[in-house]
Amino acid sequence: MPDNAKLIREKIDQAVAILKEQNIDAWMTFVRETSMSPDPSLDLILGMDMVWQSAFIIAKDNQRIALIGHHDAENVKAVDAYTRIIPYVQGIRDNLVNALVELDPNKLALNYSEDDVAADGLGHGLMLTLQHYLNDTDIEKRLVSSEAIIGALRGRKSATEIKRIKAAIAKTQQIFTQVGEHILPGKSEADIAAYTHSLLRPDGLATAWDKEYCPAVNAGPESPAGHGGPQAKYKVKPGMLIHMDFGVKLNDYCADLQRMWYVRKDKSEPLPGKVARAFEAAHRALLAGFYALKPGVEGWQVDQAARDTLTAAGYPEYQHAFGHHLGRMAHDGSTVLGPRWERYGRTPYGIVEVGNVFAIELGVEVKGYGYMGLEENVQVTGKGAKWLSEVQTEVWLI
Amino acid sequence: MPDNAKLIREKIDQAVAILKEQNIDAWMTFVRETSMSPDPSLDLILGMDMVWQSAFIIAKDNQRIALIGHHDAENVKAVDAYTRIIPYVQGIRDNLVNALVELDPNKLALNYSEDDVAADGLGHGLMLTLQHYLNDTDIEKRLVSSEAIIGALRGRKSATEIKRIKAAIAKTQQIFTQVGEHILPGKSEADIAAYTHSLLRPDGLATAWDKEYCPAVNAGPESPAGHGGPQAKYKVKPGMLIHMDFGVKLNDYCADLQRMWYVRKDKSEPLPGKVARAFEAAHRALLAGFYALKPGVEGWQVDQAARDTLTAAGYPEYQHAFGHHLGRMAHDGSTVLGPRWERYGRTPYGIVEVGNVFAIELGVEVKGYGYMGLEENVQVTGKGAKWLSEVQTEVWLI
Repeated sequence: MPDNAKLIREKIDQAVAILKEQNIDAWMTFVRETSMSPDPSLDLILGMDMVWQSAFIIAKDNQRIALIGHHDAENVKAVDAYTRIIPYVQGIRDNLVNALVELDPNKLALNYSEDDVAADGLGHGLMLTLQHYLNDTDIEKRLVSSEAIIGALRGRKSATEIKRIKAAIAKTQQIFTQVGEHILPGKSEADIAAYTHSLLRPDGLATAWDKEYCPAVNAGPESPAGHGGPQAKYKVKPGMLIHMDFGVKLNDYCADLQRMWYVRKDKSEPLPGKVARAFEAAHRALLAGFYALKPGVEGWQVDQAARDTLTAAGYPEYQHAFGHHLGRMAHDGSTVLGPRWERYGRTPYGIVEVGNVFAIELGVEVKGYGYMGLEENVQVTGKGAKWLSEVQTEVWLI
Repeated sequence: MPDNAKLIREKIDQAVAILKEQNIDAWMTFVRETSMSPDPSLDLILGMDMVWQSAFIIAKDNQRIALIGHHDAENVKAVDAYTRIIPYVQGIRDNLVNALVELDPNKLALNYSEDDVAADGLGHGLMLTLQHYLNDTDIEKRLVSSEAIIGALRGRKSATEIKRIKAAIAKTQQIFTQVGEHILPGKSEADIAAYTHSLLRPDGLATAWDKEYCPAVNAGPESPAGHGGPQAKYKVKPGMLIHMDFGVKLNDYCADLQRMWYVRKDKSEPLPGKVARAFEAAHRALLAGFYALKPGVEGWQVDQAARDTLTAAGYPEYQHAFGHHLGRMAHDGSTVLGPRWERYGRTPYGIVEVGNVFAIELGVEVKGYGYMGLEENVQVTGKGAKWLSEVQTEVWLI
């Protein structure tokens, strides 16, 4: 991945601009042993794991300071993104306190957030350690959450990031096509998942989320929809809906799509009316959300457009959010296009911005046939939403 | 991995015993969106990712309560490890507060720790959320760190865990043998790493840590030792030491070994005296640590035995810890066999226990030849340490 270091420099430049916009002097990502306890922001501003306590400070005045264990100095230098690299052997404390006192920021943003998991990379124990380090300074009073910085930084995809997401979508669509040819009566959900995984192996590709649940496959009305793993006991039979939720991670970026097939009893069987009506309702609701998705709206407004369209058509509400950011992760944090339910905290109140990429999705149960779930990937432009995936406009027939 | 659910039940049983031992009524792992923000303990007590806020409470009286999003209920049931599963749709708050008030624990252990990263899975933001949830109760005053629970639980490997670690070590040793045949003059560090990765592909194996630095390869005296990635510019030449630090992750468990080769100028060249003396000093220091490693000692005492032996032989101190736990991660948290340096916090004061598995390691620079690093994997038994790896007793000749 030759453009990784370039991408990191792009994102750090973007972070400096966001600090200016939000008038925050400095943002610090403070980590340790990140292979066990990763901070999601580290991928954006460094792109490698750290073993010892390490701090990456990006300042509004364009300083980029890396305080790291001496073992890591060579690797961090190689990224060529930090203007000052301050290595240590026995402990980070003195270097860190000195750097912060010298910087004397109006606010110091740290990675903790009640609402955005992508901005909650700082462990509570490590926060306590930092507070001890800062005991003799008055910086502790200037600590703020970095959630607005990280929300903007993760959410506003750069050109390189959009390119990578598109490549992941293209690969995912290609795999859906191949899998479609493999869905035959007698095959189980587990068979379909295993075949999907076999298509990843030649390129050494990863799934966009936990492999055991990626793809999620639902064959017929008995198979419980949700985040369930594909099971050997549910087998493809004529007269069933087959649903698959899947995405690859390619070059560190994800796709997240759902596709629907109907297994005909014979080649002349038309799509059952009940299935066709459910698809139409779900598809129209998806489009209602798509058209509501534009810069400046709040996340919940997009969800509501889709949700109201679905319920107006006589179907029950889906029990999840309509959309989520898509990027390095299938669920990429920040603003959620979801209802104002307790569990979403303040994330549905986030503002949609140009450059955001979302996966939008919803589904309905079709009694006697199975789960009908649709999901597409879209980019927010100045003019509104734009499809990144090839929209499924009808149920595929088998 | 058919024995995963069994392993999880083993570890939860172990956790209940540890709660009794430590007289803590309840231990709660509170998480959300764990594919982005994993809590290392979740692998031990659940073995899958959660999307929504979820809480797993293990109680001294053997209750095992899972409070989860309704989507995840089927998957959690399938693990068959929780006695009460309480699903929710809109928010976890009421269910969680009710369950805790009903449980009324003397102490409620949570996953935060200044010292042990493996016990610091609770994000600071999520901790704030939990504190808000508990506002109207007095449970907040009973919150304690779970570090002693997690240290014991991760550290005391079960029979199944030891079996898996042994399998990872065996596979890693096999790969070292194959790689040794591939180290030829003209090959670069990057070539050696690429060849190592090619040996993982047929079995779809993962590396024990970040693939870019696993293996770490050092060819000759110019290549900087540390956590550096293998580089194309350093090539194997006669008269060089070749050093490789590597391990596979097999069935979720890791190996972590270092091996040394010397590239002879011709087949009759003996190992240079300076290299032989460095190996002997490093090997003796490693053995000194090995013999100091037994139940009841503190981590730093083991490090000191090795460190003193090395410096007594006239070599400088290594700038890292002598040993670290090995398990699901190459650096598996808890007690460190390391010096009492600031950066290690209290981890060198941890007590070595029966069932612990450590990677023990040290190295010296051999001027003009390269880095000499040795690392073996060992298990702590009632009688002392036991080798799990086939100890390298001499530098391998090429």
